[in-house]
Amino acid sequence: MYRAKIFVKRRRTILDPQGKAIELGVKSIGISNVEDIRMDKYFELTVNENDEIVARKIVDKICDSLLANPHLEDYHFELERL
Amino acid sequence: MYRAKIFVKRRRTILDPQGKAIELGVKSIGISNVEDIRMDKYFELTVNENDEIVARKIVDKICDSLLANPHLEDYHFELERL
Repeated sequence: MYRAKIFVKRRRTILDPQGKAIELGVKSIGISNVEDIRMDKYFELTVNENDEIVARKIVDKICDSLLANPHLEDYHFELERL
Repeated sequence: MYRAKIFVKRRRTILDPQGKAIELGVKSIGISNVEDIRMDKYFELTVNENDEIVARKIVDKICDSLLANPHLEDYHFELERL
């Protein structure tokens, strides 16, 4: 059994409008020395599978099919044995 | 100068409707051994500040003021020296 910790990130060459909006918010609360803010997605899920290679394939399928937009985003994950 | 890596997570006692929706999606692609899916937020930002304690206070202020909803969410972060 594994807990997967999955990061889905917009490619760094693609504009992140939410990050830009937060940069404006940061300035509005008087902070001027913060930059390059990115907002990404983070998922956790449990795979009831003892073979790590099989668990990895299941997580890849979920990321490719549901979690990441292949045109804009990349993903990576780590598995923690439970 | 530090790169902050910030996780903003809905408290585990509070329902995560997006996670539940993804669980339905996972079942719809024929995967039945995955459960307890949570969708959280992940941010990165750069703080132009050399004192780690000051940098930590700046990130706390941004999280408390902008990134995390104190009624529903908790946050934690790590700082990586650049």
